Amino acid sequence: MKDVVLRLFAERGVDIEEIGRIVYELQRPYSDSISLEQCIESVLRVIEKREAQHAIITGIALDMLAEQNALPEPLNSIVRRDEPLYGVDEVLALAVTNIYGSVGLTSFGYLDKLKLGLIGRLNDKEKGKVNTFLDDLVAGVAAAAAARIAHQRVGDAVDNGVAGSGSSGGVAGRGGSGREGASPSASPSPSASPQVREAASG
Amino acid sequence: MKDVVLRLFAERGVDIEEIGRIVYELQRPYSDSISLEQCIESVLRVIEKREAQHAIITGIALDMLAEQNALPEPLNSIVRRDEPLYGVDEVLALAVTNIYGSVGLTSFGYLDKLKLGLIGRLNDKEKGKVNTFLDDLVAGVAAAAAARIAHQRVGDAVDNGVAGSGSSGGVAGRGGSGREGASPSASPSPSASPQVREAASG
Amino acid sequence: MKDVVLRLFAERGVDIEEIGRIVYELQRPYSDSISLEQCIESVLRVIEKREAQHAIITGIALDMLAEQNALPEPLNSIVRRDEPLYGVDEVLALAVTNIYGSVGLTSFGYLDKLKLGLIGRLNDKEKGKVNTFLDDLVAGVAAAAAARIAHQRVGDAVDNGVAGSGSSGGVAGRGGSGREGASPSASPSPSASPQVREAASG
Amino acid sequence: MKDVVLRLFAERGVDIEEIGRIVYELQRPYSDSISLEQCIESVLRVIEKREAQHAIITGIALDMLAEQNALPEPLNSIVRRDEPLYGVDEVLALAVTNIYGSVGLTSFGYLDKLKLGLIGRLNDKEKGKVNTFLDDLVAGVAAAAAARIAHQRVGDAVDNGVAGSGSSGGVAGRGGSGREGASPSASPSPSASPQVREAASG
Repeated sequence: MKDVVLRLFAERGVDIEEIGRIVYELQRPYSDSISLEQCIESVLRVIEKREAQHAIITGIALDMLAEQNALPEPLNSIVRRDEPLYGVDEVLALAVTNIYGSVGLTSFGYLDKLKLGLIGRLNDKEKGKVNTFLDDLVAGVAAAAAARIAHQRVGDAVDNGVAGSGSSGGVAGRGGSGREGASPSASPSPSASPQVREAASG
Repeated sequence: MKDVVLRLFAERGVDIEEIGRIVYELQRPYSDSISLEQCIESVLRVIEKREAQHAIITGIALDMLAEQNALPEPLNSIVRRDEPLYGVDEVLALAVTNIYGSVGLTSFGYLDKLKLGLIGRLNDKEKGKVNTFLDDLVAGVAAAAAARIAHQRVGDAVDNGVAGSGSSGGVAGRGGSGREGASPSASPSPSASPQVREAASG
Repeated sequence: MKDVVLRLFAERGVDIEEIGRIVYELQRPYSDSISLEQCIESVLRVIEKREAQHAIITGIALDMLAEQNALPEPLNSIVRRDEPLYGVDEVLALAVTNIYGSVGLTSFGYLDKLKLGLIGRLNDKEKGKVNTFLDDLVAGVAAAAAARIAHQRVGDAVDNGVAGSGSSGGVAGRGGSGREGASPSASPSPSASPQVREAASG
Repeated sequence: MKDVVLRLFAERGVDIEEIGRIVYELQRPYSDSISLEQCIESVLRVIEKREAQHAIITGIALDMLAEQNALPEPLNSIVRRDEPLYGVDEVLALAVTNIYGSVGLTSFGYLDKLKLGLIGRLNDKEKGKVNTFLDDLVAGVAAAAAARIAHQRVGDAVDNGVAGSGSSGGVAGRGGSGREGASPSASPSPSASPQVREAASG
């Protein structure tokens, strides 16, 4: 099923590395040592989750059917014009974000509002393309991947007996302007293998 | 109960008019005719909802008890330092936002990330004040009030036989950069009384 | 749009009165004076909500497309066999239930598990029919309609200066076995018109 | 933190094995080979999750403070009498259930309505005890643990090249009356160690 998601993303113009770059932008303020590779790996872990896969293949199917005018009306028109009060796209995206808990909600809304990078490009309405669900789903995946990294970082710290200080969170949306005076970048132990990290939060 | 919420907000430094101003900033890009008064009225309608009231009095109680070091540990420390992975504050705020549907999710995340105006001030950690729940709750109330206005605007348009065009939505997070080329400001019928408007979405 | 929902329900074998009867079963333990008419009216109010309408027309479209084998694979097979871990059907139904707050969650799960009446009939897999989304959506509508009645009942009581006693709630899932020793049936003022009631919870 | 949760559960009269037994009742219809030990282990895995821990310690703190009349009014009275429309208890419990996706929603509502075993005992109002949050939280933990097992079972089947047939789900709330004619009990490979199983769904 993960391969299906990767194929659909490729067909619809979504590059996993680009999602990884969004995650990197979200997480960099909280950690000097974070790498783009870690962010891409986190995106891949999110789309291994069944809950994410089901939401993604359903949303992309609705986009594609609307593009072909194959949905019943009035749904077809609503999806085609990305009607602001439709809401079902946000509901599916939220199901993805929720996989790593409520801390991803803030990042999701932020990304969905500002339409950064890839997400904004998907949201552009051109050439008969319909990405009503896709832009929200990508925001949901990026928010989940960022939340996953934040959970791991604290998990590592706890495991290493370093923290529980709360300064190492790195969840987008808190202390973004450096008010806390903490040094969040000190926390992750870069030597920990992904497997070990995953174990900490599994 | 509404009076309890208003009193608690006042005691904790939250001015309803300031929340209204945040709603106004969220909605202005979608409507030339929106007024600050409408936004303040929408905030007041949100806090008349039982679901919002319960979340607000619970969250503020937790803030106040943490301030007095009256919560059991380790909860007291977690709430005092607004631990990024705590998550319960976002969960309560989301219950408020959800009252007017999933379309408020985006605004909530945006506000919670950027900490605009009052929300940022509440998030500042100074003088032993604990506003771990309050800043999120205010973002949740503002997002719900903005979603309520967006629903009403489309409701009005539909009632007046104008729309169904989807161009009049004004939900924060869509078409924010004017990509749609629509003129969202034409929609609301300013003469409709609040009561009539409410009926349309009741 | 409400007419679209009513037409789709009729085409798919869902009778509004049958949903009303489920609501009646949920609410009767909490009120002697509740009538089937009130329950049907509450169902109709739920499906006037835009959030409910969007979820319903989306879910039914997915059912119909799966029935015609018109969804892309593997989604088509997943929806056709109502795969237990699919989850998107519950997510859409929950968006309906949430309209009247978290108190409807319990009723939704209860109905979705026990598959009472109409909901069980829809869940039966026969004759190539696909009701993967529809049975959950009907449970979501019934749970929302019951929650709406419970909110109104307490609203009335508060307005009439009777309550705040908490004994008049009638939310499915609490005190169902009469443990509380309260007399929940005493609360609603049957003379209040639906309009007045709505105003109390609007 | 897990130790804190275990200690709080013990202090409040919640036995992990009893929660395991509820999970067992939920899952037995879908699998002959499930053991009580697996169910207890699944409960323990749920309470290792930070999201669950935070919801649990917050809810129990509110119960305890209400018991001591240490919450501000009117919150203290609302929590003490387990007011049916309060809703915050369901919101916290849902945050726990959501950890393993939307498929746990149905079990949560079912348990919360029927108040099986331990959950019903906690809901009994006697001797000044306040378990307003605790009964919902236990239902949320049990629903999450059952969803986790259902996800693993299908995960195993997929890994072993057996399934993708959907007959092996075992999520409470579907096909409970055997309508599907499937033999869901054939799926899990009992020899797989918990570690291997976890890896499949991690």
